[in-house]
Amino acid sequence: MEVAVKPVDCVAIVSGGLDSVTLLHYLVQSKKAKPYVISFQYGQKHVRELQCAEINATELGCPYSQIDLTGLGALFDSSALVSGEREIPHIETVMGDPQPPTYVPNRNMLFLSIAAAFAENKGVGTIYYGAQRHDIYGYWDTTQQFLERLNSVYALNRKSRITIEAPFVTFSKTDTLKLGLSLGVDYAKTWSCYAGGDKACGVCPTCAERLTAFKEAGIPDPLPYRAS
Amino acid sequence: MEVAVKPVDCVAIVSGGLDSVTLLHYLVQSKKAKPYVISFQYGQKHVRELQCAEINATELGCPYSQIDLTGLGALFDSSALVSGEREIPHIETVMGDPQPPTYVPNRNMLFLSIAAAFAENKGVGTIYYGAQRHDIYGYWDTTQQFLERLNSVYALNRKSRITIEAPFVTFSKTDTLKLGLSLGVDYAKTWSCYAGGDKACGVCPTCAERLTAFKEAGIPDPLPYRAS
Repeated sequence: MEVAVKPVDCVAIVSGGLDSVTLLHYLVQSKKAKPYVISFQYGQKHVRELQCAEINATELGCPYSQIDLTGLGALFDSSALVSGEREIPHIETVMGDPQPPTYVPNRNMLFLSIAAAFAENKGVGTIYYGAQRHDIYGYWDTTQQFLERLNSVYALNRKSRITIEAPFVTFSKTDTLKLGLSLGVDYAKTWSCYAGGDKACGVCPTCAERLTAFKEAGIPDPLPYRAS
Repeated sequence: MEVAVKPVDCVAIVSGGLDSVTLLHYLVQSKKAKPYVISFQYGQKHVRELQCAEINATELGCPYSQIDLTGLGALFDSSALVSGEREIPHIETVMGDPQPPTYVPNRNMLFLSIAAAFAENKGVGTIYYGAQRHDIYGYWDTTQQFLERLNSVYALNRKSRITIEAPFVTFSKTDTLKLGLSLGVDYAKTWSCYAGGDKACGVCPTCAERLTAFKEAGIPDPLPYRAS
């Protein structure tokens, strides 16, 4: 049987976390897309997530690029995700915070700008990223409104039509996890914890959200956690 | 007499060309602003412009940062400004072209995204850039509409109010030059030519525009040009 090799037809920003890895599987399996997968190294403490991004891209047959932004590190040094001096906060401390200390200044605009340059250069028109609804705190750059307004900017491009899509923008992390489980995603090959280390901390905002999602989905998280 | 040291209060993107250097002098002299001056090194053939940016920033007492994006060079390799394989076009070939070969994919979005991260990190709210009206060809990312829509995105930021301003967006290059001459800008300390080299080529789009502006202003350009 002759198998047609599908051309690469979009860009997906994949950090290696639960949401973006689920997004990648959703694009390949449900949308029959073949993305250029890109990740950003920007000095984050949790580099293990990038290895997870590459593993998933490779297993799904997608070309993978890691974009090195460590030269921009100084721009991000007010974020606890990057700075060695700032502690990753516990989930309790960010409850209700409209912009918690893990916010990285303008990160999504920057990542999406680079992804759009990448897409324009490759001649593909759609960029996917894993923005999702945040129930208890949130970022301004993961909302439906952000997406709509940013697309209205890109609509002005005269030759390359770039559209940014975030299929999970209205999903909770539990919704995303349940979708991923239905697609057979192996969550041992994802990494969410903001802190560095071999085991997830279990108490940072993303660990707390992840653990809640697994609890709500009724299955154990395959990742190792530090004993608390 | 005690002289108050003015705090740095905005960000200006300055390439070292005619427009952005004029913008910097306008901000400091007319608007009494004190910007963080930032330039981008992205593999462009005309690195001499960056030296001009630094000279002007230093003379005006503004802190200067050069942001190294050469690691992103591959994203921009479809542009004649960057690629060694593509010739810088003559002005005649871009007449009426809505997006000429000197267009760098999504460059302004990317530069403004980094400038916004920089501003957010420094705690200042306004970013200036030297977009101007293009009479005979143009880019989608230098227009009034681009600016308005981009500001509507940044208006969503919940803690840092970032506004992007382009005071010359309705100016022709001649308008900008006349303003700069009235402010005493030394245009020997600017560089516009897209091609590399010790002398300006005189025929690339930006040389042609610059020469027209000096002709319309009725004074000679102090830069050296190759004999044609």
